[in-house]
Amino acid sequence: MHCPITPQVERLVEFAIEEDLGRGDVTTDSLLLEETAAEGRILAREELVVCGLELTEYVFARIGPELNLSILVTDGEEVSDGTELILVNGSAAAMLMVERTALNFLQRLSGVATTTRRYVKIVSATGAKARVVDTRKTLPGWRILDKWAVSCGGGGNHRVDLGSGVLIKDNHIAACGSVWEAIKRAQRLAPHTLRIEVEVSNLAQLDEALEAGADIIMLDNMNEDQLSQAVQRTDGRALLEASGGINRDTVAAVALTGVDLVSVGRLTHSARSVDISMEIIEK
Amino acid sequence: MHCPITPQVERLVEFAIEEDLGRGDVTTDSLLLEETAAEGRILAREELVVCGLELTEYVFARIGPELNLSILVTDGEEVSDGTELILVNGSAAAMLMVERTALNFLQRLSGVATTTRRYVKIVSATGAKARVVDTRKTLPGWRILDKWAVSCGGGGNHRVDLGSGVLIKDNHIAACGSVWEAIKRAQRLAPHTLRIEVEVSNLAQLDEALEAGADIIMLDNMNEDQLSQAVQRTDGRALLEASGGINRDTVAAVALTGVDLVSVGRLTHSARSVDISMEIIEK
Amino acid sequence: MHCPITPQVERLVEFAIEEDLGRGDVTTDSLLLEETAAEGRILAREELVVCGLELTEYVFARIGPELNLSILVTDGEEVSDGTELILVNGSAAAMLMVERTALNFLQRLSGVATTTRRYVKIVSATGAKARVVDTRKTLPGWRILDKWAVSCGGGGNHRVDLGSGVLIKDNHIAACGSVWEAIKRAQRLAPHTLRIEVEVSNLAQLDEALEAGADIIMLDNMNEDQLSQAVQRTDGRALLEASGGINRDTVAAVALTGVDLVSVGRLTHSARSVDISMEIIEK
Amino acid sequence: MHCPITPQVERLVEFAIEEDLGRGDVTTDSLLLEETAAEGRILAREELVVCGLELTEYVFARIGPELNLSILVTDGEEVSDGTELILVNGSAAAMLMVERTALNFLQRLSGVATTTRRYVKIVSATGAKARVVDTRKTLPGWRILDKWAVSCGGGGNHRVDLGSGVLIKDNHIAACGSVWEAIKRAQRLAPHTLRIEVEVSNLAQLDEALEAGADIIMLDNMNEDQLSQAVQRTDGRALLEASGGINRDTVAAVALTGVDLVSVGRLTHSARSVDISMEIIEK
Amino acid sequence: MHCPITPQVERLVEFAIEEDLGRGDVTTDSLLLEETAAEGRILAREELVVCGLELTEYVFARIGPELNLSILVTDGEEVSDGTELILVNGSAAAMLMVERTALNFLQRLSGVATTTRRYVKIVSATGAKARVVDTRKTLPGWRILDKWAVSCGGGGNHRVDLGSGVLIKDNHIAACGSVWEAIKRAQRLAPHTLRIEVEVSNLAQLDEALEAGADIIMLDNMNEDQLSQAVQRTDGRALLEASGGINRDTVAAVALTGVDLVSVGRLTHSARSVDISMEIIEK
Amino acid sequence: MHCPITPQVERLVEFAIEEDLGRGDVTTDSLLLEETAAEGRILAREELVVCGLELTEYVFARIGPELNLSILVTDGEEVSDGTELILVNGSAAAMLMVERTALNFLQRLSGVATTTRRYVKIVSATGAKARVVDTRKTLPGWRILDKWAVSCGGGGNHRVDLGSGVLIKDNHIAACGSVWEAIKRAQRLAPHTLRIEVEVSNLAQLDEALEAGADIIMLDNMNEDQLSQAVQRTDGRALLEASGGINRDTVAAVALTGVDLVSVGRLTHSARSVDISMEIIEK
Repeated sequence: MHCPITPQVERLVEFAIEEDLGRGDVTTDSLLLEETAAEGRILAREELVVCGLELTEYVFARIGPELNLSILVTDGEEVSDGTELILVNGSAAAMLMVERTALNFLQRLSGVATTTRRYVKIVSATGAKARVVDTRKTLPGWRILDKWAVSCGGGGNHRVDLGSGVLIKDNHIAACGSVWEAIKRAQRLAPHTLRIEVEVSNLAQLDEALEAGADIIMLDNMNEDQLSQAVQRTDGRALLEASGGINRDTVAAVALTGVDLVSVGRLTHSARSVDISMEIIEK
Repeated sequence: MHCPITPQVERLVEFAIEEDLGRGDVTTDSLLLEETAAEGRILAREELVVCGLELTEYVFARIGPELNLSILVTDGEEVSDGTELILVNGSAAAMLMVERTALNFLQRLSGVATTTRRYVKIVSATGAKARVVDTRKTLPGWRILDKWAVSCGGGGNHRVDLGSGVLIKDNHIAACGSVWEAIKRAQRLAPHTLRIEVEVSNLAQLDEALEAGADIIMLDNMNEDQLSQAVQRTDGRALLEASGGINRDTVAAVALTGVDLVSVGRLTHSARSVDISMEIIEK
Repeated sequence: MHCPITPQVERLVEFAIEEDLGRGDVTTDSLLLEETAAEGRILAREELVVCGLELTEYVFARIGPELNLSILVTDGEEVSDGTELILVNGSAAAMLMVERTALNFLQRLSGVATTTRRYVKIVSATGAKARVVDTRKTLPGWRILDKWAVSCGGGGNHRVDLGSGVLIKDNHIAACGSVWEAIKRAQRLAPHTLRIEVEVSNLAQLDEALEAGADIIMLDNMNEDQLSQAVQRTDGRALLEASGGINRDTVAAVALTGVDLVSVGRLTHSARSVDISMEIIEK
Repeated sequence: MHCPITPQVERLVEFAIEEDLGRGDVTTDSLLLEETAAEGRILAREELVVCGLELTEYVFARIGPELNLSILVTDGEEVSDGTELILVNGSAAAMLMVERTALNFLQRLSGVATTTRRYVKIVSATGAKARVVDTRKTLPGWRILDKWAVSCGGGGNHRVDLGSGVLIKDNHIAACGSVWEAIKRAQRLAPHTLRIEVEVSNLAQLDEALEAGADIIMLDNMNEDQLSQAVQRTDGRALLEASGGINRDTVAAVALTGVDLVSVGRLTHSARSVDISMEIIEK
Repeated sequence: MHCPITPQVERLVEFAIEEDLGRGDVTTDSLLLEETAAEGRILAREELVVCGLELTEYVFARIGPELNLSILVTDGEEVSDGTELILVNGSAAAMLMVERTALNFLQRLSGVATTTRRYVKIVSATGAKARVVDTRKTLPGWRILDKWAVSCGGGGNHRVDLGSGVLIKDNHIAACGSVWEAIKRAQRLAPHTLRIEVEVSNLAQLDEALEAGADIIMLDNMNEDQLSQAVQRTDGRALLEASGGINRDTVAAVALTGVDLVSVGRLTHSARSVDISMEIIEK
Repeated sequence: MHCPITPQVERLVEFAIEEDLGRGDVTTDSLLLEETAAEGRILAREELVVCGLELTEYVFARIGPELNLSILVTDGEEVSDGTELILVNGSAAAMLMVERTALNFLQRLSGVATTTRRYVKIVSATGAKARVVDTRKTLPGWRILDKWAVSCGGGGNHRVDLGSGVLIKDNHIAACGSVWEAIKRAQRLAPHTLRIEVEVSNLAQLDEALEAGADIIMLDNMNEDQLSQAVQRTDGRALLEASGGINRDTVAAVALTGVDLVSVGRLTHSARSVDISMEIIEK
């Protein structure tokens, strides 16, 4: 699997370059730096899951094509504090220009991957089968990258956009009249390649959804007790997804109820950037 | 002051629309929803500093131009849990399409503003004069927006890019030979509209920088004791900026040393999105 | 349902404007035409299914915002030769500039909708339940628009891109080792919101796919006899899709075998533009 | 002559990539395919005129830069069913990702070239001197590519846009008052590098146009008899272009009237994609 | 005739906004200006030919949509020093933000129009029939705008790009073998809507070009004597264009030789911006 | 120092290519030129300061990647009439396609550098310390390139945009109430990395600005006498910038008053393109 450097991701990288370097680098320019050779080392400054290496290569290629990179780890790898991630060789001035933009990408993506890995490990430690999945609560402009980072962290991807998954929410149900009616319409008209998911808030709606033949049922903000009952009642007839305000303190208990999926907005909307730095040693 | 909706911000919004709605909304389409009138309420779900209201208006105008918005608060305002921020009137289907994209912007920007406000209040409570400022550790594609959110939170903006501030770092110094030489070159050649800042890691370098006439001196990763000495030694001859790993636990002590500026990467690189939701009530 | 005028569709329209009007209109300019008022009538010149009316409005709004349009029909409507589709009022010169670009869009989309409707009617006349669906054989740059036209014609949409549907083809199977292994991997790792489809070329593979739990099975280039056997063997355990070179002469027989879906590349890759013209009458 | 891969064509290719691969390839990703070496063969599946080889190379370079291509034919070449057009070597997964997008371009362009060649051969077989030319009825976003395909098919290009040819139509004439007046204005004010063409619908208008000194006269929807008379009357004083609903059944007779040009919208607006496929054989 | 605000011109305006306002306006922001009402007056500060009014309106609409404009003159109008061109009403802060970008467009375009008018008047005063035309020596990114300004100044437009005029230069001739051969090939293969122009450097080549049937002949760097001879020899059989280093001192003599066209690179590549300023009076 | 080829500059180059080559090159295409090898020489046709060589390389790489370039001089170098700047080897047809676009960039940038050098030399000859600096009166779309050319000419750069320098103008002062109040507000709220400049029109305002602690004071349209008084009064307490209508006749006297900076709009808004041509010799 490769990091998806789609045309839109290429544009995002150009935006990042333009916003940092679009008016030049007045410091480097005014210091009249000789093009001195240097070695740069990009290092993990805490324990983390790396993500964004191929993208970082792309960023370097766009800003400092004359720099040589050696990638020492792989996306999804867990590394300890102090681990060297990338070695760079070439002009010191070029490194100074690319440094911040490259690290901003790498730190964000590794932050999402690291956060995800923590959730995955907690669930995994319980022995529960549940898969930790993301949501559409990603950073605007970063959807595909954020989802890549989640998968590098070991999480699963929920629908990538409104066109790649049917998810019938409470307002849709209200507009259609009933859970049953909403599911029937979707079965008739939605693309056949997509499963039909419906959000329910109580067990009566769950029953209605099961009877109507929903493929996936999102159990919205239910407590553990309700979740367990839902799992029993469903008995494998549909995939069950627990959703709503789940955090590191609650995810184990939720997973242990037996649901198939636990979706966690925090993986992307509240992941902090991890600490990664670049040391430049002039030769 | 207005949120800067520059051409590049417009493109970022288009990216966000494309990535969520670029393949249509298969759920709404397959449910054949009538265009039922609804009222939407965007609500704070925790105590927070609002930021991004004008941008949210722009997002609504791009995705659902037929919706009417009433903005009830202003950027930079501190609101309690449950406060209504925006009322929306119009088609329920249009609201469902714009909801996630709009909230993703609003939650991120309010998250940065809220984080910033916390730091500003801590410093303010100490009575110290220090200004809390941001860094270039912003999300790629979000530089101008992240900096807007910091200012809404009460923080100051450090240089917006490599072209709007001279900041001589350790690698620049090494390449030039000395602090003195680096400052002298910058004084000769940098645009006269920019102050000259230099990063120093000890008091000897501080003295050299002061003598060379630096306008701003960044005290990198110094402890409180060193910072206090630096303040005394400088005695107003230059602006002093404390920098490096400052967090909510340490910012008060740093500010009390008497430095002019405290720069905090966490304002932008690790701000979590705050909780804001949209309720849609069909009429 | 509305025509999806996404940011990318807006760019395609800009491309179309740039490529026809990007160097101005030397004829109109050199004739020094007064801005004479005129009425334009866009007319069907053959029996057809209309598609692209909202998009046409958008094209007019971009090129000739001063023109007033009255849309007289709706997307998906079947009209006879001579039917007025749109009335335009305003400057004759503006109409002359927008005419070709607008018609090029409208004729293509109506062409796809008309072709699709023909297939849908043939299948419908047989009484078979099969749904006629499109493929990814759309015009580069036109994916979302071509799929909109298919749905206006009464067809269903197959996956819109490689990210919104799992479709395991012969090369994937070869690389995985077996139909079974490929399906099992996909069940483990593909986004749970997507059904898993697999392409099979004989009945042994069909059995393997059914046993492995495929959601949809594409029967590639099978004859009617094989298709019928496949339907019997499957007995509702998966959706069956007939695919491969199906045309207007063969589609009825294919549908009558009892498959659930008939996918037809011709809907988009070989639809001819229908005849629609614009008459401009100066007042 | 080379295929014009202008900046706008590059953008169209990016659109095509974004719309197929912008959300990744969930199938290939979930199957965890090893990067197995393979050989791909792109084959003509019917007799056709190839067009778009350089563009296909560009598409491969954008999506799968690690793949090696051998182009075996040249744009404009007529090949029989089964002819190998391109050999590809490299990763099977990369081939699967580029396949559809590349073929969609190649099939469309070869379709236009093949259609054009048929018209050109019919005219050529009559011994008439007439040149078959295209129109502005091209696919939005595809103007320059469609026109390239026409020229590969042996046709000529009419004006590429409204800025590269003066063509006075009935509405222009009406607005100017007379054929004479319209031509005189254009002679005075149009760029001197462009010939002046005028559309006439009867022989009286033809005479007026000839007298006014039109360079080219478009004979709109005239029957063969009228066309022949027009040719006689004109006697070489202007180029004559027959236009309006000409198809494969009528083009020979039209050409035999002695006109210089026959313009055919069908070359581009109704060309079907020809059948070209890619076989991937894993090694 | 209207100023061509094509999609590419819209992008150029966005570039101009981004490059001046893309990092915000730190002055206005830091002064916390109240939104005071003001009146702005855009004034000619020297005698000039105005050009770019519609474009200026567009620039204002993009940056300060809340400002009201009254356009007091028209593109192509000659105005004296001190003439009011545009009145603006609205917020002073908005005016300060749009001022420089708007004037930069208006001053450049009016500069080109003013320069052109001077050449046109000189030629006109001689009584010669020659038309002053531009070249492709325009500012990159400004082709269509520069050509618009030339036409507002009273000049004619030479080919707008390499696709809208055949111009056979000395290198083309060398590659083809002879003037005759080059013209014959172009007659056979160039789009029939375009005249065929050939550059000649002596009278022997002129004769060859006339015999071969060139439509336009560019007389490259000939002196007045040669030009006069060329006019006599040609005797109306082709359009004659004088070209090469023509300036305000030489244009009259060149025109008096009787050539049809005088092409002048200076109209665009060396036009200085004229003096136009904006006065803002707060109310 | 390198020419800043930012993403936006890359887009400007694409615009330039699109506007000249976006419809192909009908001349070269219709002449069926063999790909004959040629050598091209780009030559200075007058004494000039070269600027734009790296950009020219980029333009060649985009249009004719198969051409080999040898750059013989460096940006900022002063060369005499006839000097060879660049040698090109490769296909004659490719050279003919890239020639005009490349020269248009090179001539403009060298024109600005040459104009700047003249001002710099005049000031330098007086022995005055003043630095010649540019303004924001650059060509829309060209800000960063124009400023690069000024620096190659030996001039300094004033603020690059409204975000990289505080400049309080008369309208700002009027809105704030006084020079004092405006400066105090900016000191409180503007980014600390930027110096604070204020425009004054008389000596009373100068005193007020000095007392308030302005870093830079722009002396607007003052005569030499006033400028000299301002220098005396200021006595090094702030940088002084003379501004307003300064030209080659007045710049020496202005510089001799002892001001620190002389800003000259003419460097960019009225620089003519210098004469550079390309000779192509077929081998």
